Amino acid sequence: MDRDHILLTPGPLTTTLRTKLAMLKDWGSWDADFNALTARVRHGLLDILHGHDTHAVVPLQGSGTFSVEAAVATVVPRDGHLLVLDNGAYCKRLGKVATLMGRRTTVGTRAEHLPVSPAELEALLLADRSITHVGLIHCETGTGIVNPLAEVAEVCQRLGRRLIVDAMSSFGALPIDARAIRFDALIAASGKCLEGVPGMGFVFVRKEVLAECAGNSHSLAMDLHDQHAYMERTGQWRFTPPTHVVAALAEALAQYQEEGGQPARLARYTGNFDTLTDGMAALGLRTFLAPEHLSPIIVTFLAPADARYDFGAFYASAKAQGFLLYPGKLTEVDTFRVGCIGAIGRKEMQQAVDAVGHTMRAMGLRA
Amino acid sequence: MDRDHILLTPGPLTTTLRTKLAMLKDWGSWDADFNALTARVRHGLLDILHGHDTHAVVPLQGSGTFSVEAAVATVVPRDGHLLVLDNGAYCKRLGKVATLMGRRTTVGTRAEHLPVSPAELEALLLADRSITHVGLIHCETGTGIVNPLAEVAEVCQRLGRRLIVDAMSSFGALPIDARAIRFDALIAASGKCLEGVPGMGFVFVRKEVLAECAGNSHSLAMDLHDQHAYMERTGQWRFTPPTHVVAALAEALAQYQEEGGQPARLARYTGNFDTLTDGMAALGLRTFLAPEHLSPIIVTFLAPADARYDFGAFYASAKAQGFLLYPGKLTEVDTFRVGCIGAIGRKEMQQAVDAVGHTMRAMGLRA
Repeated sequence: MDRDHILLTPGPLTTTLRTKLAMLKDWGSWDADFNALTARVRHGLLDILHGHDTHAVVPLQGSGTFSVEAAVATVVPRDGHLLVLDNGAYCKRLGKVATLMGRRTTVGTRAEHLPVSPAELEALLLADRSITHVGLIHCETGTGIVNPLAEVAEVCQRLGRRLIVDAMSSFGALPIDARAIRFDALIAASGKCLEGVPGMGFVFVRKEVLAECAGNSHSLAMDLHDQHAYMERTGQWRFTPPTHVVAALAEALAQYQEEGGQPARLARYTGNFDTLTDGMAALGLRTFLAPEHLSPIIVTFLAPADARYDFGAFYASAKAQGFLLYPGKLTEVDTFRVGCIGAIGRKEMQQAVDAVGHTMRAMGLRA
Repeated sequence: MDRDHILLTPGPLTTTLRTKLAMLKDWGSWDADFNALTARVRHGLLDILHGHDTHAVVPLQGSGTFSVEAAVATVVPRDGHLLVLDNGAYCKRLGKVATLMGRRTTVGTRAEHLPVSPAELEALLLADRSITHVGLIHCETGTGIVNPLAEVAEVCQRLGRRLIVDAMSSFGALPIDARAIRFDALIAASGKCLEGVPGMGFVFVRKEVLAECAGNSHSLAMDLHDQHAYMERTGQWRFTPPTHVVAALAEALAQYQEEGGQPARLARYTGNFDTLTDGMAALGLRTFLAPEHLSPIIVTFLAPADARYDFGAFYASAKAQGFLLYPGKLTEVDTFRVGCIGAIGRKEMQQAVDAVGHTMRAMGLRA
């Protein structure tokens, strides 16, 4: 039997058959039909952000991390100074990306189980006037914690610093309104809460910022200013686009709107989250984060404190029942993660919880 | 009627339905099944190069240009000096990539209608001992010209310089045998002569060279040393892979071997080329390059020297008949291009020639 597994991961995730069927066509990347597809995708992304007045959206080939790197390379001037608010693995990666490319980088580290603190940010910014940019991960996928985007944006705006938001795993599900929240760049990707397939990212850049960004990037491939200028002039991508991935995203965006947009997507994921956390609690499994810090994106569970627990066997058992779990990413605590996102609902999540229950009983695990 | 156009372009190109059907499955990027898929693709790529003994292959997310940039960033040390042999648009792009990232770069320019000259290369290398690396485009897609890879490699080896080959549009069709030709890096991509879909590239790097490359790259995303080390350790990609694109490439590689590998692929493309060039000659259309410099990859034709010629109208007419042509990329001469590659044969190419004939008659064009 070759039935697809349900992916309980933070992307790639389970997509609809309709989204995948959109890939059964070859597009000419120079052709007007494909240019129209790209334009439709860009328009749809700006709709979700409510960003038509304030931001341009620049799609980029590659994984989401490529878009994160491109955003920093393009938006932070070579003599800029980036403060990364760090409470997890993806924050650390952002710091590494900026450091490697030669941007002055300061990492403000906080415990992984707590959200970034706007008050601490304010203190850091007041203490160091040289900081020009702040980098924030909206939902830190390492733990699933949601950081206070609106409050961080308010501090940055008040103190005259520019904000870069990695909204990779939140965009499309959690509300982000560019009319209410001020940021210079916000990054996400095709294969997350929009439920497209992986292979491209995109960066929303404040229009007047984009105009100042020429020549910042050391990388041709990652120069979003150049990518945007070329796309505006020609309607095309500068370099070969992942045409099938773009087509899948267009189809995924159509379904996103048909479902009811961001509120409906969040409601479905919240249903998944409730089914997951209620079910796992009934199995005795505890979350790594306190309840008030959990997100309906991905949940980190403490591994059963039982000598018989082994993630490999646990994973294999769940997989044999049709579900792919996700390993933990914390160094100090043994955890595993379960994603709530993708083209699934409460029914699939209940089946997953049941599979975890069977696994625990079969392995003789006590939580 | 929504029938796919035949793409007579240098990629994305027409792929088989079987290749596209491989994308109707969602893979977990952390899962052993996907790791096995990645391993199979990497093994298949090394088979084609005859490179198992000498080279490692590092896949990379993004378009082929991303892999070109990654190859330069990883293989050329920060104090290296790259000589780019330039006879076309992609050579110029390679020079720009290297310059932007801060590598010392010299561009040896030659007329676009002539292949790179090994004798000129030898003179350049003897005149400047500081040149550490040579960058060559194997088949310059701007014109379709094939550069003398074996002879260039021989000069580099004899004079102790390292060679980076952009084989984007030749790999899989033209013979390249790592046992016979020495190079440090060779770059290609999924959506060219292997007839996969676009969205990933790959770089073959000489094994002992890869070991020396740690820390060369300013870019985290494009650090092939890091990508390779992680992949060897875990079987996984460092950052989210374009899972559906990888699956399509695996299926395309299976068909490549079933067809008979590189000799069969070249024979089919040569058939396409013969049908194309014979048919266009009969219509009075002349190639930009002399016959001895043409390649069975993509052919540049001089636009009809007729005031009624307009590429937009010419393209639209061919498109209405089912074929997507490709614009020229030369600044001084008015040209258009026709690709010979993709999942097509003589039959489709004859239909394309017929469509061009109908177009010329309908537009009242004399060649």
